Amino acid sequence: MKSLVIVAHGSRRQASNDEVRELSSRIESLTGESFDQVKTAFLELAEPSIPGGIEQCIEKGAKEIIVLPYFLSAGRHVTEDIPGEVDTVRNKYPEVSIKITPYLGTIDKIADLMVEQANQAS
Amino acid sequence: MKSLVIVAHGSRRQASNDEVRELSSRIESLTGESFDQVKTAFLELAEPSIPGGIEQCIEKGAKEIIVLPYFLSAGRHVTEDIPGEVDTVRNKYPEVSIKITPYLGTIDKIADLMVEQANQAS
Repeated sequence: MKSLVIVAHGSRRQASNDEVRELSSRIESLTGESFDQVKTAFLELAEPSIPGGIEQCIEKGAKEIIVLPYFLSAGRHVTEDIPGEVDTVRNKYPEVSIKITPYLGTIDKIADLMVEQANQAS
Repeated sequence: MKSLVIVAHGSRRQASNDEVRELSSRIESLTGESFDQVKTAFLELAEPSIPGGIEQCIEKGAKEIIVLPYFLSAGRHVTEDIPGEVDTVRNKYPEVSIKITPYLGTIDKIADLMVEQANQAS
């Protein structure tokens, strides 16, 4: 069983956290058979935490987990904090495979979407 | 003459600001004839500022400017700060058309890119 966890920063503004949760739902509807479930987790200010979200997947039977950081740049959160949080779960469940993908901002095709967005506005 | 301004938050970490500048260069190479120039501007912590970046475009002859907020959620920066900064330039150059597009996080197709990213990692 395979899970995808979308990790966002988390905000005091609940609507921002809900935006990410809605995105995760849309992603879940798009993943087809490649992932059994898609969860949202937050680095801070919202629940579940990264270890909490990953453990929810493990409790549902996930043996393979992909963590995708919903971040635009490679600051400390991406380079240190998220891997650190993930490591705490890895140490607790060494039989589960947990991989972190490159963060959202590394996806080249975002540039194409931004060009479309700009063209639509003009 | 038409310009596109990619507006990012700005970071103390220069590499993050440079990431956005590189993205703007890639976008410029993709816009073809639809935009004469693509600039980067920052809300804080990096240069040029939003009014500064827009004015650079106007000085080069832009009569129409599209501002695209490189932000993932509709926090205060997107809903208040960016429009406020843009208004200062609108008031100064009423003959120039300046439009703000919906922010990056509103682009639905990002979900498809995230699915691809997750599938590649698994």
